[in-house]
Amino acid sequence: MEHFADRLLAAIREKNAAVCVGLDPLVDRLPSGLQETARRNPAEALSAYGRGVIEAVAGYVPAIKINIAFFEPFGAEGVRVYLELIAAAKRAGLLVIGDIKRADIGHSTTQYAFAHLAVENATAADAVTVNPYLGWDGVEPFVAAARSHGRGLFVLVQTSNPSAAQVQGLQLTDGSTVCHAVARLVQGWAAGDGLVGRGGYSCIGAVVSPRDLPSTVRIRELMPHCIFLVPGFGAQGRTADEVAKCFRPDGTGAIVTASRSVIYAYEDSPRHPQDADWQSRVAKACQDFASTVRGLQTMPPA
Amino acid sequence: MEHFADRLLAAIREKNAAVCVGLDPLVDRLPSGLQETARRNPAEALSAYGRGVIEAVAGYVPAIKINIAFFEPFGAEGVRVYLELIAAAKRAGLLVIGDIKRADIGHSTTQYAFAHLAVENATAADAVTVNPYLGWDGVEPFVAAARSHGRGLFVLVQTSNPSAAQVQGLQLTDGSTVCHAVARLVQGWAAGDGLVGRGGYSCIGAVVSPRDLPSTVRIRELMPHCIFLVPGFGAQGRTADEVAKCFRPDGTGAIVTASRSVIYAYEDSPRHPQDADWQSRVAKACQDFASTVRGLQTMPPA
Repeated sequence: MEHFADRLLAAIREKNAAVCVGLDPLVDRLPSGLQETARRNPAEALSAYGRGVIEAVAGYVPAIKINIAFFEPFGAEGVRVYLELIAAAKRAGLLVIGDIKRADIGHSTTQYAFAHLAVENATAADAVTVNPYLGWDGVEPFVAAARSHGRGLFVLVQTSNPSAAQVQGLQLTDGSTVCHAVARLVQGWAAGDGLVGRGGYSCIGAVVSPRDLPSTVRIRELMPHCIFLVPGFGAQGRTADEVAKCFRPDGTGAIVTASRSVIYAYEDSPRHPQDADWQSRVAKACQDFASTVRGLQTMPPA
Repeated sequence: MEHFADRLLAAIREKNAAVCVGLDPLVDRLPSGLQETARRNPAEALSAYGRGVIEAVAGYVPAIKINIAFFEPFGAEGVRVYLELIAAAKRAGLLVIGDIKRADIGHSTTQYAFAHLAVENATAADAVTVNPYLGWDGVEPFVAAARSHGRGLFVLVQTSNPSAAQVQGLQLTDGSTVCHAVARLVQGWAAGDGLVGRGGYSCIGAVVSPRDLPSTVRIRELMPHCIFLVPGFGAQGRTADEVAKCFRPDGTGAIVTASRSVIYAYEDSPRHPQDADWQSRVAKACQDFASTVRGLQTMPPA
């Protein structure tokens, strides 16, 4: 299969949208029309909702990020729905990022990589998210799977949560911080033999939330071969100017993700009759989000 | 329910064994008597093998650590078996550590914590493993679940894999390393209000692989309230002297885990007829392992 980064770049161009919708569904927040199903069978309600979101956004975005955390509370049935939604999103023409944030020692990561990235079936994601705390051998099996299957991974570098800096912001003797050291490490992996596609980007990308401008600018410089998956836009409050710094000057190199601000867009609307128009609300929020990010991509450098 | 650390200390005393068997089953390595089942239905074979291991070791160890990575390759069915084995191990009187190594932003970690630690059913683990890269809010929902359900967690501090030091060993301006900073951070969390049990240990423990003696001694000093879950003994090659430093001078404060060296003990035996005695081989390896660790607990300090 074609290189993951090249497939992602092409899909971003085709949709003219460097954005990704995050599917983090909470049963309590499903449209009222799905609440009865949710009471009877929550996993089935998540499935119906997920398929509805996919249908609503597939025309406007290149990719969807599905967070397995929101499916695991429903046990094996939840995981079945997660995997089925991956297949459904791929059928709808979307690239799928499995937001699994896994890592373990190599022996165990090999199993995670097989499960989520290397399986030869419709439920394998196009890319997954990975945690760097164990270093290279906690990540390598994902890289091997990505290389041989035209798939990718995004390694957590700078996350969007309030306490991210407790570990990621620790000051190193070389004047940088842990997340800058991780950025250099991941760039080193990303530039490895056979991992960089025709467009100049590696199948190893990075999760980079723009916490502060200088740090974001520095991480962008440190990681020329990495596409950034940029969380925090929307409900998590990152500003346009901060997010703009995740793109390279040519407007490539990042895909911005929003979850709650898109998938729950119908919550702002009066709930009558049964949120029957919830999909059009989600579609509208998705289009607005894509339009906002198009503006950022062409912002002049600071 | 009683405090997790107190339950674990009591179980270690009762079995006179500060050890934990790690269940990381690979289909290819199952006893030959299960290979036909494995070809037909790998998840079913893992289930039969897992129940066999539980039966073999339950008399000799206080706890079993089940690594979900080895079940996820079989999709929803694999996860179902993982959850069923948790229930089976609890019925056999074992404490169960769900080796899930999860972490995400708080909003998402809440879902993982509910799925694995807070659900009110037989498939909830007694404790789980957690990754610290996102800081407190990536861990806090597990702590809340542990506090309210008499359960626990082990936060990765120093892992056993070859590349662990790439991130964990980064040098900080205060003269320590990332894993020492994480040790201090986790100790701070562990000492929090209402988290320390009658025995002086917190429901927040730490995964500490003894990579080198000075670092292990330092981490032991930094984390007086944390029980260490100590991987790397056996197949991963940590020595007795290194592992001994994970215990406090009174012989408490650590539980040593071995996986491959115990659960595949039958591989050393001639394969006739159909490894029929595989469970007794596993039981024997488990008893030997517990006996070795008893020796370490009483080693005089260096």
